[in-house]
Amino acid sequence: MIDTLLRKIDAMKNPTVVGLDPTLEMMPAHLKAEMFEKCGKNPEAVGKMFLKFNKDIIDSIEDIVPAVKPQIAMYEKYGLEGMKAYLETIEYANQKGMIVIGDIKRGDISSTAAAYAAHIEGTEIEGESFDLWKEDWVTINPYLGIDGIQPFIDACNKKDRGVFVLVKTSNPSSSQLQDIVVNNKTIYETVAELVKEWGTQSMGTMGYSRIGAVVGATHKEQGEKLRAMMPHTFFLVPGYGAQGGTGADLKGFFDKDGRGCIVNSSRGIIAAYKKNDKYGEKVGEAARDAAISMKADLQY
Amino acid sequence: MIDTLLRKIDAMKNPTVVGLDPTLEMMPAHLKAEMFEKCGKNPEAVGKMFLKFNKDIIDSIEDIVPAVKPQIAMYEKYGLEGMKAYLETIEYANQKGMIVIGDIKRGDISSTAAAYAAHIEGTEIEGESFDLWKEDWVTINPYLGIDGIQPFIDACNKKDRGVFVLVKTSNPSSSQLQDIVVNNKTIYETVAELVKEWGTQSMGTMGYSRIGAVVGATHKEQGEKLRAMMPHTFFLVPGYGAQGGTGADLKGFFDKDGRGCIVNSSRGIIAAYKKNDKYGEKVGEAARDAAISMKADLQY
Repeated sequence: MIDTLLRKIDAMKNPTVVGLDPTLEMMPAHLKAEMFEKCGKNPEAVGKMFLKFNKDIIDSIEDIVPAVKPQIAMYEKYGLEGMKAYLETIEYANQKGMIVIGDIKRGDISSTAAAYAAHIEGTEIEGESFDLWKEDWVTINPYLGIDGIQPFIDACNKKDRGVFVLVKTSNPSSSQLQDIVVNNKTIYETVAELVKEWGTQSMGTMGYSRIGAVVGATHKEQGEKLRAMMPHTFFLVPGYGAQGGTGADLKGFFDKDGRGCIVNSSRGIIAAYKKNDKYGEKVGEAARDAAISMKADLQY
Repeated sequence: MIDTLLRKIDAMKNPTVVGLDPTLEMMPAHLKAEMFEKCGKNPEAVGKMFLKFNKDIIDSIEDIVPAVKPQIAMYEKYGLEGMKAYLETIEYANQKGMIVIGDIKRGDISSTAAAYAAHIEGTEIEGESFDLWKEDWVTINPYLGIDGIQPFIDACNKKDRGVFVLVKTSNPSSSQLQDIVVNNKTIYETVAELVKEWGTQSMGTMGYSRIGAVVGATHKEQGEKLRAMMPHTFFLVPGYGAQGGTGADLKGFFDKDGRGCIVNSSRGIIAAYKKNDKYGEKVGEAARDAAISMKADLQY
């Protein structure tokens, strides 16, 4: 899957992933009206809106963007109906040949992490396999150390899928823990070293590991330092666009061949229709234009 | 909810929470057979098993144990059908008057954390409120700092519910990050100080905050030190029993009045029937006996 991701980015010349993080506020009026009429004002209606909205985005970008990243929290907010929309979104993106990064940030002790690893590995029942979540990649949290990570590494090896471990997140208060310095090294650098080491257990054939890292676009210098520290670790880079990161900030996150990263934009793409009246409620058209601009911004 | 929890523990003289972490391997043969026959060998059957198993446990302990803690990973492993069993388990425990701690360990940046906070706050759709998850408490991960925590604190204040922030987890590799020392202070102590500070925003009326901490039973000295450091922080203590913690280890986790903690046991209670042939497949009876022993072990 790391090889597939690299090849797909190369082929499209576009290291972008579109974050499918829908909110009710983001839905166009006609779609809200349609689903509320059909289902009532309830979670089922919201789930159906999210799915239709996501399909519109996917249809509009699938030929120019290699991957999507649904943020599970946005769906979990609407309970089971939301989770259903999350799963159906993934299924649809899979059908269209897009790579799916499930932004789930799970993390727990070993036996529990093994259960969460079903996101990657699937689930066995009486000898039969069920791939119930279908993400190609997921994000995971390192606070509990290696025994919460190992089940995911094993699953990645088994299924040729991948994970991105949180190293340096894009939010302002990421500094509270992640930037604490100990022996001239920050906590996020300590995590980076662990991720690098863990990654050796699961190398692809093109120089990068299936065990990647989340490195926020909002931290230019840290990203450059991490790129140098972790030459075989692929980065998922959130925080571009709405959170403040720009293409110019990110040059140093890539390796000398212009590889090694996939940069996420969520609101900047999927809610682009709200930024310019000319789009009206044409969500997909605006998303495609925004994705084309982002691609241009990321050519070095 | 922190007051309710304290009062319920006082009334039952039992600071125990039973972890509802079912696995397929744990299911008694008759229950497996029944559900596989009814539904086929699929996730639906497993979800139905888990729910019936949990109900049996809840019915057997509801008068002597104040709370249950379903671990969402065990359910997430079985996709939507598993999540349905998680929700129905919570609903059943609620009906029986038990307090529910959802062990979800979520954590993300602010806007995303706000979506996850629906676990505590519920969800609003066009002015109408939906309480879709129904947990009284949830566990959360601090790696992203305060802006991932604040939405939960706000939700706790609004709904009088609570959260337990991971401070020192019970697993062996918790030391990899959490025990790193900086300026004579470990990372988990740094997190503890943050949790203590965050907790002042959400005090109950009986000396404890709605913002609690997860402190593993497997770390006796650290737990005692944390109790002294955080006199108003209530502890959720995993790692008792199967993971190695004993009642004697935990005396110092409680305050001078014998309050301040709720201790979790999962396998040690819910799979107790497998430990002694005399129970056959009487899951509930064995769980009740194990819960009574645990209660006795935690009287100081």
